[in-house]
Amino acid sequence: MYKDATVAEINEVMEKAWKAFHLYRKLSIRQRAALMRAIATGLDQSPDALIQTAMQETNLPEARLRNEKARTVFQLNSYADACERGEWLEARIDTANPDRNPPKPDIRKMLVPLGPVVVFGASNFPFAYSTAGGDTACALAAGCPVIVKAHPAHPDTSEIVAGIIHEAVKQQQLPEAIFAHVHGASFEVGKALVTHPYTKAVGFTGSYLGGKALFDWANQRKEPIPVFAEMGSINPVWLLPGKLQQSATDIAKMYAGSITLGVGQFCTNPGLIIGVEGEPLQQFITALGNEIRQIAPGTMLHPGIAKAYEEKKSTALGQQEVSTVAKSATAPAANQGVPVIASATGKAFLNNPVLHQEVFGPYSLVIRCADAAEMLQVAEKIEGQLTATLMATEQDMLDNDDLVEAVKNICGRFILNSVPTGVEVCLAMQHGGPFPASTDGRFTSVGADGIKRFARPVSFQGWPDSLLPAELKNGNPLGIWRTVNNEVTKNTL
Amino acid sequence: MYKDATVAEINEVMEKAWKAFHLYRKLSIRQRAALMRAIATGLDQSPDALIQTAMQETNLPEARLRNEKARTVFQLNSYADACERGEWLEARIDTANPDRNPPKPDIRKMLVPLGPVVVFGASNFPFAYSTAGGDTACALAAGCPVIVKAHPAHPDTSEIVAGIIHEAVKQQQLPEAIFAHVHGASFEVGKALVTHPYTKAVGFTGSYLGGKALFDWANQRKEPIPVFAEMGSINPVWLLPGKLQQSATDIAKMYAGSITLGVGQFCTNPGLIIGVEGEPLQQFITALGNEIRQIAPGTMLHPGIAKAYEEKKSTALGQQEVSTVAKSATAPAANQGVPVIASATGKAFLNNPVLHQEVFGPYSLVIRCADAAEMLQVAEKIEGQLTATLMATEQDMLDNDDLVEAVKNICGRFILNSVPTGVEVCLAMQHGGPFPASTDGRFTSVGADGIKRFARPVSFQGWPDSLLPAELKNGNPLGIWRTVNNEVTKNTL
Repeated sequence: MYKDATVAEINEVMEKAWKAFHLYRKLSIRQRAALMRAIATGLDQSPDALIQTAMQETNLPEARLRNEKARTVFQLNSYADACERGEWLEARIDTANPDRNPPKPDIRKMLVPLGPVVVFGASNFPFAYSTAGGDTACALAAGCPVIVKAHPAHPDTSEIVAGIIHEAVKQQQLPEAIFAHVHGASFEVGKALVTHPYTKAVGFTGSYLGGKALFDWANQRKEPIPVFAEMGSINPVWLLPGKLQQSATDIAKMYAGSITLGVGQFCTNPGLIIGVEGEPLQQFITALGNEIRQIAPGTMLHPGIAKAYEEKKSTALGQQEVSTVAKSATAPAANQGVPVIASATGKAFLNNPVLHQEVFGPYSLVIRCADAAEMLQVAEKIEGQLTATLMATEQDMLDNDDLVEAVKNICGRFILNSVPTGVEVCLAMQHGGPFPASTDGRFTSVGADGIKRFARPVSFQGWPDSLLPAELKNGNPLGIWRTVNNEVTKNTL
Repeated sequence: MYKDATVAEINEVMEKAWKAFHLYRKLSIRQRAALMRAIATGLDQSPDALIQTAMQETNLPEARLRNEKARTVFQLNSYADACERGEWLEARIDTANPDRNPPKPDIRKMLVPLGPVVVFGASNFPFAYSTAGGDTACALAAGCPVIVKAHPAHPDTSEIVAGIIHEAVKQQQLPEAIFAHVHGASFEVGKALVTHPYTKAVGFTGSYLGGKALFDWANQRKEPIPVFAEMGSINPVWLLPGKLQQSATDIAKMYAGSITLGVGQFCTNPGLIIGVEGEPLQQFITALGNEIRQIAPGTMLHPGIAKAYEEKKSTALGQQEVSTVAKSATAPAANQGVPVIASATGKAFLNNPVLHQEVFGPYSLVIRCADAAEMLQVAEKIEGQLTATLMATEQDMLDNDDLVEAVKNICGRFILNSVPTGVEVCLAMQHGGPFPASTDGRFTSVGADGIKRFARPVSFQGWPDSLLPAELKNGNPLGIWRTVNNEVTKNTL
C-alpha cells in the first residue's frame, strides 16, 4: 500500500519539475530521443518480476501483458524516431526581403515544449497507457518533464516501471526531476496536480467522470491548461444492407470476438451495432447470440470495474425497450464479466439517452432500425466517438452517402469492414474523437502526432543564424523537413 | 442602427449553417480556394464608399484603411494558396502489411472541418480581423461555414463587406448559408452564438474580459468547443546593456514611433520596456520622453476606447510607485489619446500586479531594474504575451542565456532588435501566446497555419482507393505533400 502524496509533496515535485524543465527543454531532439530509447531498452530488458506483478495487480493474462509491454517498447522507440525526424516541430522559415516597402523581416517558427506534464496512469493499460506509456513518451519527446500519478489499481507495476525510467534518466546524465512518480487514490491528489501553477498540460485515459473533472479543474485555473482526456466511447458499427446480405454470419463471428476481447475492457470496444430490421439482421443477431453463449466470462481488471459493469449492464437491460438476446452459458466467478448481447429498436434508441451510454465490459447493443433513414437519424443523434465502423460494400457506400458523411462527423477513426478493437501505433492513427470521446478531438493519444499535444509554436523574428535554435538555422544541421518560403524542403538556405 | 439579433433569429441562422456545413465540407480544397479568391476580388474592387464608411465609423485615417483592406485581400489570397497547397491537411498514409502477425491495416489520416464557426469582429481592425478577416478566411479554408457577429463600432462597414461575401458565395454557386452576418451590441447575442449546439468553434480578437467570457461559456457547454480568443498583451521589451550602451537614442526614436503607432491601438503595442538602472537607461528614458512630447494625440477608434484608455492610464499613473516621464505637449481634443511614458522600479513591478495590466493606447511603462538578476525576475513574473522583444547584441544574448530562455517561455513571437508592432502575414508567423495573451497559445490567428484551428484529424482504416477522399487517394490527384510510411513525399503510391 502506498500513501497518497500530500500537497506539500506535490508542491516539491512540481517545483523540481519546473526547474528541470529549463534544462530539459534545451536538449536537442537527438538527446530527447536517446532518453526515450534508454527507457525502451530498460523496459525491454526488465526482469520477469514486472510481468508477474502486473498479472497479480490487473488479472490480465501473461500473453496479453507481454504483448502490451512489447507495444510500449515499440511506442517509445517509434516516437523517438519521430522526435528525431522532426516533422512534428512544424519548422517554417520565411526569409527577409529588405527591398519590400516596408521591409519584410526574417521570421522562423517551430514548436517548443509547454512545460511539466501530469500523466494519469490508465487501469486497462498498465504499460501502454501508464507510467512509460504513450502520454509519457510524447511529453518527453516534446521536451516536457513528466509527473506520473500511478493508477491505484496497479501501483507496484507502476513503481517498477518508474524505477526503469529513473535509471534511464540517470544513465543519460540528465536532471533527475525530468521524471517524477506519485501515488494517490483520492480525487484530491489529482486535483492538486492539475491545479498546480507549474503544471502546463495533462494526459489522461479513463472514465468520462474522471476526465471531465480534470478538464473542468484545468479550465477553472487562473491560467487554463490543455487536458487530453481520452474518455471512452461506444464505437458504433453500422451494418449496411448489401454487406449484411452477403455475410451476416461471418460478421457475427468477427464481432463476438471483438466484443469480448480482453473481457471488453477496451475504449474501442464495439458497444453499439446498427442495422435495418429484416431477415439478414435477424440472421446476424441469431449468429451473434450463438457465439456469445459459447464465450466464457473473464476476470475483470479489478473489483471496482466488475461492479461498475454489473451496474451499468443492469441499468441498460432494465430499460423497458431493451431485451436480452443472449448471454454466456457459463456462470461467472467473482469479479468476472459476463458477455451479453441486447437489442432495441431504432425508435427506442432515438428516444432514450440511457441506451447511448457506454457499458464498459463485454456488452453490446444491437439497434434494429425501421429503414435507412432511421440509421441516418441514429448517426446524427450519437455524440462524439473514438471510432465508428461501417460494414459495407462499395455499392452500400455509394447508396448511403449521407450516412457516410454523418458518421465521419462524429468519429476520430472511421473503419471499413473490420473491428474497432486493435489500435495500430502509427503516424496515420487518430485516437481521439469529438467530445465526449475526448476532451480535445483535435489531437491523438496514439501515434507520434501525439507529441504535438505538449508543444506550442514560437516565432523568432530577426534572429541571426548563430543564435537561432538548430532546427531553424540556415544550414539545417538536424536535417529535418521544413517549409521555407512556402516550399517543403530539407535543403539548406 | 441595427437591432440585436434575437434568439429565434440566431437559431435560424445556426440551423441553416449546420445544413450548409454538410454541403460545404464536401467541396474540394480547390473549390474552397476559389470562393476565398472571389471574396478577395470583391473586396479589392469594392467602391470607395467602403473606405469612406470605415473612416466615419472608426476614425482611422484613409491611408491606414486602404493598407488594411489591401492586407485583407492579401490574406484571403495567400490563405487560399495555402488551402490548395494542402500541407495544413497533415495527410498521413501508413500502408497495409498483410504479412505481419496480426496483419497491419491500411490507415490514412487528414484534417476535416469542425463545423460552423462564429467569428467576432474586432474594433481595431475593421477589415483584417473583422467580417472578411483572418478568422473568416481560415474557417472557410478549413471547410467551415462562418457566422460573423459585426463589431457594434463599425456595423455599416461590416454590412458592406458581408454583402461582398454573399455576392462571392452566389457567384461560386454555393449554398447561401455558408456565410451569415448578424448584429448585436449586447452580451446576450454573443452568448447565444457561442452556446448554440451547432457552433463548433469561435474566433475572437478583443479584450481579456470579452475573450474570457466566451471561453468560459464555451467550456461550460454540454459539448465544450474551442475558442480562439486573442486578448491582447503588454509586449515587454528588454534593453540589454551592450545594445543600450551602443544606441540608447536610436532605440528611443524607434520605440516612440511604435508606442504611438495607430494611437497605440494594436495588440502588439509595446507597453513595457525593461532595462537596468544606470546612465544608458537614463539616456534612453530622456530621449524617449523628448520624442513623446513631440507626438500629437490622435483620435481613438470610438469614445468607449478613449474612455477606457483614460481610466486605465489614470489607474496606472495613480500607483504610488509610478512616475510620469513625459506626455505629449499637445492638448487632446475629445476622444483623443495622449501619448504618455511612465516609469517605475523593478521592485515596484514585481510587487504590484496593477503595473502588469495592459493600458490599450499610446502608453508605455519603463521599468528600471537594479541588475540583470532583477530583469530575469521580471521575465519570470510576467504572464503570457503575444510578443516579447530583446534589444541586444550577440554578446548580450550569450551573457543572458537564462533571460533568453525565460522570455521564450512566455511569448508567441520573439523579436530581436526591432519593434513588436507590424505583424507580417506569412506562414512562419505566430500570433497567439500563452494565456492570458490568447485562450489557446497552440494556434495562431495570423498566417495560414491559422486554418488548423478549425479542423481535426480523422483516420480512414481499410478504405478502398475509390472511396477515399481525394487528399488520401493512391494517385495523389491534388498533388499535395503527404507523409507516406513516415516519409514526406508528393509521390503517388
